[in-house]
Order: sequence, then structure tokens, then C-alpha cells
Amino acid sequence: AMEKSYVSMFLLLIAVSCALAKDAGKKDTKETTAKPKLPQTLSRGWGDQLIWTQTYEEALFRSKHSQKPLMIIHHLEECPHSQALKKVFAEHKDIQKLAEKFILLNLVYETTDKNLAPDGQYVPRVLFIDPSLTVRADITGRYSNRLYAYEPSDISLLYSNMQKALKLLKTEL
Amino acid sequence: AMEKSYVSMFLLLIAVSCALAKDAGKKDTKETTAKPKLPQTLSRGWGDQLIWTQTYEEALFRSKHSQKPLMIIHHLEECPHSQALKKVFAEHKDIQKLAEKFILLNLVYETTDKNLAPDGQYVPRVLFIDPSLTVRADITGRYSNRLYAYEPSDISLLYSNMQKALKLLKTEL
Repeated sequence: AMEKSYVSMFLLLIAVSCALAKDAGKKDTKETTAKPKLPQTLSRGWGDQLIWTQTYEEALFRSKHSQKPLMIIHHLEECPHSQALKKVFAEHKDIQKLAEKFILLNLVYETTDKNLAPDGQYVPRVLFIDPSLTVRADITGRYSNRLYAYEPSDISLLYSNMQKALKLLKTEL
Repeated sequence: AMEKSYVSMFLLLIAVSCALAKDAGKKDTKETTAKPKLPQTLSRGWGDQLIWTQTYEEALFRSKHSQKPLMIIHHLEECPHSQALKKVFAEHKDIQKLAEKFILLNLVYETTDKNLAPDGQYVPRVLFIDPSLTVRADITGRYSNRLYAYEPSDISLLYSNMQKALKLLKTEL
């Protein structure tokens, strides 16, 4: 007899909205038939010379074991606000340098961990997690309705938030 | 006041063993300081011309919406059994062709979904999921103690199992 085990715990959380974007393209969360350019990379343009983790599980493991904070960028490839932030992020030399001190993950599909959506799912959304596996919900951007959103003009705030995240809550020696 | 939300639901399941491998290298699950060769790709050598998904969540979404079955290969880069299977998998033209009909995911870090470890976590381990999001626990290899393990000599069985997985349990029209 065939065993059936449904993947019920993994709800498909795809209700992602492009933050602040009223004129965003309509294909944000839709499948497209166009094939991506090969090879597919983990950086997706957020810093090709940086090391990116593939999955949340990998990122948590590496953060915990390296004692580096984890930086998670939620984005969508066809969201203009995501694209704009990516451009300034990738071209900002100090940010790219500072990013080396983090475990890095960029995600187009949401995880099932509600801790990563303290005020909802939207993109672009940047969250920091301490190596003690604490979500740094205190590290926020400028927008009270979307605490973890950043616009390109907020890049200096994002930089200083990265510096803040590097001060670990509790260092294990 | 700083909010703290711990990532408690995401236990770090890293107790992966390299199937059948008694003489495997000792660095399978350890961090290494060596940087990976850039750019990091999603294929990891399992078929560079194929389209690979990044995460389990993405793979489930694409499987459901494309009505293609999902094939998940759990492996470790330093596990010789994983390496050996990867080599024959990547060089097998019929398998590479047939793989185009699947949503593909290769994972080095385990997900938290227990449905993906019907008889435990080990590598290499190949599981199929129907677009109805049913784990095809009935599609197995030759080893009764590790039902979803394949050795290089089992490549024809893996091919026929892929054909079996393509017969969907329930087609939505």
C-alpha cells in the first residue's frame, strides 16, 4: 500500500506584496515561462563576490556556529523597489565590505517561520538575526507601517543598522 | 524595549549521515574556512543546464502551480557517495533530459519537514513529491534500511523511478 504523507506543515505563503509599490509590475508573484539566465547564482545581484547561503536552515546553522549575525533580505526580482535597493546595496562599497561579516541570505520565497515577518510579509524587507538565534526586531528602518523596509535613500540607515547588528547580544566564548 | 523572538521552531537538524559511507571524510557537516568557488550556483554540479529551485518553499510552490512533480536530492559536498551519484546523474543524458520535466531541488542542509525523512536523514537521499504535495514514499531504491538511497550502480532504477513519479497521482485540470 502506498504511504501518503502530505506536506501540510509547509503552507505556501506567497502573499508577498511589494512594499510601497503602487505601480509595481503585475508579475511579482506569478510564474513566468521565461527561463532564467544561466548559471543561476545565490547572490542574485546583491553582491556577486559575497558568500550567500542557500536556505534559511543553512543560514541559521552557519550563524550559530560562526557567531556571525545573519542578514536576510526578502525581495522579488520584478519588484522595482527591490531592484532599486539591490542596485544601491550592490554598488555601496562600505556595505559590501561590511556584509562580509554577516551570514547572508536573500530570499524570493518566504519561509514558514513567522518570526521573519514581525509586521507582515512584504518586500524589500531586511531582518537581522543574532547568532543566539534571536530575531533583532529592534533594528528597523524609517517606516512605521513597514518597519523592515528600506528605500534606496535609506542606504545609510541600513549601513548603520548593519553596524548595530554586529554588536552581538550575547557572545559565547 | 527590544522585542525578542527566538527562532525556536527551526531546530537545527544537522544530524545528517553519509549513507553507507564508513570511510567518508570527517568534514561532512563541519564549517570550513575555505571560500567556495565563485559564482555559487544552485545546480552544484547535478546538471548545470537544468533549472534548480533555491528553497523547499519555492519548490513546493512551483510544483503545485506547474503540476510538475518535485525531485529533491539531499546530499553533502564532501560525501563520496553523494559525489559518485552526482557524477553519474550529471553525465546520464536520459536522466538529464527527463529531469527537465521536474521541479528540481538539491539540498545540503535538511529542512524541518519530517515528511522528507520517512526513514531518517542520510545522504544521498532522493525523494519525489507529487504536485498534490504528497510525498511519494512508495518510490524507493534497493536498500531496505535506507529506502531513498541510491548508489551509482542504481542509476537505471533512479531513472525508472523518475518515470514513475511523472505519473501524477491526481491531475488537476
